[in-house]
Amino acid sequence: MNIYDIASMAGVSIATVSRVLNGSEKVSEKTRARVMAVIEKEQYTPNLFARGLDQGTIHSVGIVVPDISDLYMSDCVSVLEKGLEKEGYSCILACSGYDQKSKVSSVQMLLDKMVDALILVGSTYAGKGGGPEETGYIRAAAGKIPVFIVNGIVDGPGIYCNICNDRQAVYEAASFLISHGRRNILFLTNSRSYSALQKLQGYKEGLIRHGIPVSEERILFPGDRIHAVRDYLLNTPLPAFDAVICAEDFLAVGAVKYAHARGIRIPEDLEIIGYNNSSLAISCEPELTSINSRVENLCTNTVDFLVRRLETDEPIPQAADFSGILTFRQTTLP
Amino acid sequence: MNIYDIASMAGVSIATVSRVLNGSEKVSEKTRARVMAVIEKEQYTPNLFARGLDQGTIHSVGIVVPDISDLYMSDCVSVLEKGLEKEGYSCILACSGYDQKSKVSSVQMLLDKMVDALILVGSTYAGKGGGPEETGYIRAAAGKIPVFIVNGIVDGPGIYCNICNDRQAVYEAASFLISHGRRNILFLTNSRSYSALQKLQGYKEGLIRHGIPVSEERILFPGDRIHAVRDYLLNTPLPAFDAVICAEDFLAVGAVKYAHARGIRIPEDLEIIGYNNSSLAISCEPELTSINSRVENLCTNTVDFLVRRLETDEPIPQAADFSGILTFRQTTLP
Repeated sequence: MNIYDIASMAGVSIATVSRVLNGSEKVSEKTRARVMAVIEKEQYTPNLFARGLDQGTIHSVGIVVPDISDLYMSDCVSVLEKGLEKEGYSCILACSGYDQKSKVSSVQMLLDKMVDALILVGSTYAGKGGGPEETGYIRAAAGKIPVFIVNGIVDGPGIYCNICNDRQAVYEAASFLISHGRRNILFLTNSRSYSALQKLQGYKEGLIRHGIPVSEERILFPGDRIHAVRDYLLNTPLPAFDAVICAEDFLAVGAVKYAHARGIRIPEDLEIIGYNNSSLAISCEPELTSINSRVENLCTNTVDFLVRRLETDEPIPQAADFSGILTFRQTTLP
Repeated sequence: MNIYDIASMAGVSIATVSRVLNGSEKVSEKTRARVMAVIEKEQYTPNLFARGLDQGTIHSVGIVVPDISDLYMSDCVSVLEKGLEKEGYSCILACSGYDQKSKVSSVQMLLDKMVDALILVGSTYAGKGGGPEETGYIRAAAGKIPVFIVNGIVDGPGIYCNICNDRQAVYEAASFLISHGRRNILFLTNSRSYSALQKLQGYKEGLIRHGIPVSEERILFPGDRIHAVRDYLLNTPLPAFDAVICAEDFLAVGAVKYAHARGIRIPEDLEIIGYNNSSLAISCEPELTSINSRVENLCTNTVDFLVRRLETDEPIPQAADFSGILTFRQTTLP
């Protein structure tokens, strides 16, 4: 028996149960009576959380990421954790992997921990194009507590999304390359997540907009590690190409290493653009031109939405999006 | 009022309070009576955690790291989280920063969350040489629940440490460089943590062992970012040097960029060794020889210690140490 069960039996939100337990004056007498009837019937005593409930909340937020060793995700969690801590919330972290079943159980584990809200980091939570049943557990969770998604879109009441407009960012990267004469542009990716598909879409639209036909043989999944990417490019028969756009920085580092192995000059004969503007981009030689995917802004805004949603009556938007910013370095021509 | 307070008032451990609440037969009648007297006097009701307490635990572990955006630490948390999840524990993450006051409050926050154990990741928790008062809060926490430290040593009952022998690893790196004639070796570092000081010590011992005098002007703190390190080396009057050992990979990447800017050949005229064998080491060009600091082993063993400590009566060692492994790539001669 927990506060969700009480809320559900009384047909009210957990915020309302919390207000009743608080003695808040914002609850009508009728609602209060209904909630108290359930509490008494079920002999529910929220002792251990008493301090939290006095303030209307236990002040903790569940964060779910597929893989905390991923640079993008650990940056996100770092910004989220610092922002939430400043607002008085602690974080419970779950690493769900990419598998549907373990995503569902991670979310359930956090609901069992009585968190005030959930933050899902990464577009894998928006599904892989398998339809609404892939995200049903998120909508179900959002029926209990607010859910915030960093860089993925799931529609539904109580779900709030902050995304980087990956499609537009890659569209602009493609347009930039085409503007100085590149026509044979490879697209390297490693995922079919919402975000990865948006990037691919931006690539295709960039080509089409400039009258260049999209060829499936230029869209490659070369592997999950830098050396695997290099070796794939070295060992696979490829169509001629004069530029590469990558869905992740590590793919671009692999492309740079391929060019070194082949003696291809960067950027004169081959331009390369990465994605996420991570520390790999500046470790690489030459340093990578890369798309800044606005982690700081996405995560700061997520914390802002969360605090406004939990602590005020202000309406907040279901979604906010930020533009990626092309950060120029040495793998593209000026 | 929480389970710690009850335990403290009754003069018993929280495990004993939990056993009393469980109806376990392992508690003497006298102890049971004393605990129950306190529970009744304080009107303590552990309802919300009832399920957890039936099993004697709420099965969550607090993890504290100074900075989750650091590659080493996010790798550690990733391995810890996966291992703990497999054992049925969830993780509550706190990012404490490097400041003493916020370390103390992060630990307190996790104790307030009623975690079963604490894991502190990173040698910053072993203090910065300021004496035992720097680690008093860790010993105090260990009086309540077991504390595990990843890559730092703090002495005290209930504190269990897994470390990489950083001193030995750097000693071997220095010996390796000296073995092919390098005599003027710089040491780059960015911290005075326990681990950083061990690395420095290994550097000094390596030189001394081979009859090379230690010169303070070869020990440098060149900054916290790759480009800052490069620029520091470019703009600071330096003694002649033919090799560099770095306490972190990013420092080594900065040294590589310095060599490129000066037209110095790597490894012929300058050998460079990094630390942690991170993804930066393979993004860099030429790729970095780097010390593998055994994150996987340290963290897997930490989980193993934790589970044995919480779930069995087996004695576990206060400390276990692993040897760092020099991983050879292109910034050193064969």
